[in-house]
Amino acid sequence: MTVSEVLQLESVPPGSTQPGVLPLNHSFDHWLHQHQARAQQLIERFVPPEHPLVPQLHEAMHYAAAMGGKRVRPLLVWAAGECVQADDQALDRAACAVELVHAYSLVHDDLPCMDDDVLRRGQPTTHVRFGEALALLAGDALQALAYEVLTPEADIAPALQARLCALLARASGADGMAGGQTLDILATGGAVSGDDLMHMHSRKTGALLKASVLMGAACGGFDTAHPAQTYTALETYGDAVGLAFQVVDDILDVTADSHTLGKTAGKDAQQNKSTYVSALGLDAARKLAHGLRDKAQAALDTLPPPQRAASQRLRELADLIVLREH
Amino acid sequence: MTVSEVLQLESVPPGSTQPGVLPLNHSFDHWLHQHQARAQQLIERFVPPEHPLVPQLHEAMHYAAAMGGKRVRPLLVWAAGECVQADDQALDRAACAVELVHAYSLVHDDLPCMDDDVLRRGQPTTHVRFGEALALLAGDALQALAYEVLTPEADIAPALQARLCALLARASGADGMAGGQTLDILATGGAVSGDDLMHMHSRKTGALLKASVLMGAACGGFDTAHPAQTYTALETYGDAVGLAFQVVDDILDVTADSHTLGKTAGKDAQQNKSTYVSALGLDAARKLAHGLRDKAQAALDTLPPPQRAASQRLRELADLIVLREH
Repeated sequence: MTVSEVLQLESVPPGSTQPGVLPLNHSFDHWLHQHQARAQQLIERFVPPEHPLVPQLHEAMHYAAAMGGKRVRPLLVWAAGECVQADDQALDRAACAVELVHAYSLVHDDLPCMDDDVLRRGQPTTHVRFGEALALLAGDALQALAYEVLTPEADIAPALQARLCALLARASGADGMAGGQTLDILATGGAVSGDDLMHMHSRKTGALLKASVLMGAACGGFDTAHPAQTYTALETYGDAVGLAFQVVDDILDVTADSHTLGKTAGKDAQQNKSTYVSALGLDAARKLAHGLRDKAQAALDTLPPPQRAASQRLRELADLIVLREH
Repeated sequence: MTVSEVLQLESVPPGSTQPGVLPLNHSFDHWLHQHQARAQQLIERFVPPEHPLVPQLHEAMHYAAAMGGKRVRPLLVWAAGECVQADDQALDRAACAVELVHAYSLVHDDLPCMDDDVLRRGQPTTHVRFGEALALLAGDALQALAYEVLTPEADIAPALQARLCALLARASGADGMAGGQTLDILATGGAVSGDDLMHMHSRKTGALLKASVLMGAACGGFDTAHPAQTYTALETYGDAVGLAFQVVDDILDVTADSHTLGKTAGKDAQQNKSTYVSALGLDAARKLAHGLRDKAQAALDTLPPPQRAASQRLRELADLIVLREH
């Protein structure tokens, strides 16, 4: 996928290139809050703040995982799961596991040797609060915990456990998140094209967001072993929302303030980071985000009828990701 | 398990408390070199140094994983696998995965915010060679890769993949390696008893060594779902060699030189670290190491006859771990 391919998509209606407003939808709003609360409950269950043996480590892990956030990845797991009538117990564990990997990546990204950030979700970052060594170890332990959550004695069929571990590992390692983060660090300061950014972000943030969708689909029995229409549609959807998420992040870094974002605004420019805004300009970046949203939703239109009917939450999440204000 | 329990074991013959010499055994020597070479081949296969997309990250991962070491954890996987007639393909992947987790833990332990070490296996540590950010990311990616190696499309039955992921995750997270490392960091500088050290090291190094034995056993179909005589014996063996390994590490830090060790000798005392030698004295630490070796080998004597006959490599590895000189 290249920037120009997305911008030239015939499916992009002219109106959609303007900044939009998230449509009011009480049913979605209810679903959203219900599932964000469910994410929090799962975090509290699997990452309790108190533990008799190594209390400091558990406190740091809980701090990193429980301090909030939009829970976009768990929401994608659940929405994809609804689309394919997946089992709730497996979905809950998959949703929690991707959020744990996301949380560990934030802790490590914020460390002084990486982005050196002191503010996250309006709170001191984990290393500011607990010291660098504990933050490093808490991140490491959160990554291991994700695989522990995916491999319970009961609750999930063993073959599905293996499939979920495979999807998560591939999305978060050298070919996914860690590889993208490396490209990001190496690119800081140099001029980068929009296509290079897509290449980098499809790994750095896109891979885990896409994996969230695919893990939800896997919980309903859809995976590469069944390369059906459903799988392909959800994969295309996952690719597009994964990229859209980062484009909007870059836009908000320029247009929103630190209070609304809960993290330091304007930091990309300050650090001379290449972003979609610096590479394409603000208008084209907005156009790209809307184009990706439309691409995601067009993919859902190709689902077989029963799943298309059950894809409403995925459709609404694509709106949320592109039209959010923080 | 406490220090005094081990030292009072009736099974400890009087002669075994003296420093020993590894008995010459050409068959074991051949097996050892053959399997160390196999570990290296697997590392080269799963962590190739060259990769077109993010070359720097892959180079750092390869450097960290391939630079040598005794490969004790893979050797334990294979030896336990021989004991239960396990499948070779599963064993190879399990052996590689534990070594990748071990390699990632060394990279992170050596970082300036942790042990701040510049020399490992006679070479500059990963962060000295590649910078802190890349070392951090290489460690993170190696951890993810371990789960990728355990969850191939073919080669291992899905239920076994899930079981191996479960064992590895529990051994390396907050209740295992990362928790033990936290206790170690928090304890530096304070007086610690021998029993506290056992408690800490049973997690820091013991958990992954024990998991290596259990993963080998799992490849032959033995796990907690079949809590048979075989499983219990191998678990006791794993606990004992896991602890013995660290006791001997502490002894060698005092008695060997940096050249032989391939890392900075005398560093524990320099950093005011609590070790078995500082807590118990050199003689009692040696006695403890030998007691643990005897305990490990006594556990193998309780195996059912066909497995007892096939446990020779495990027996010899216990000797190797206690009688090694680096």
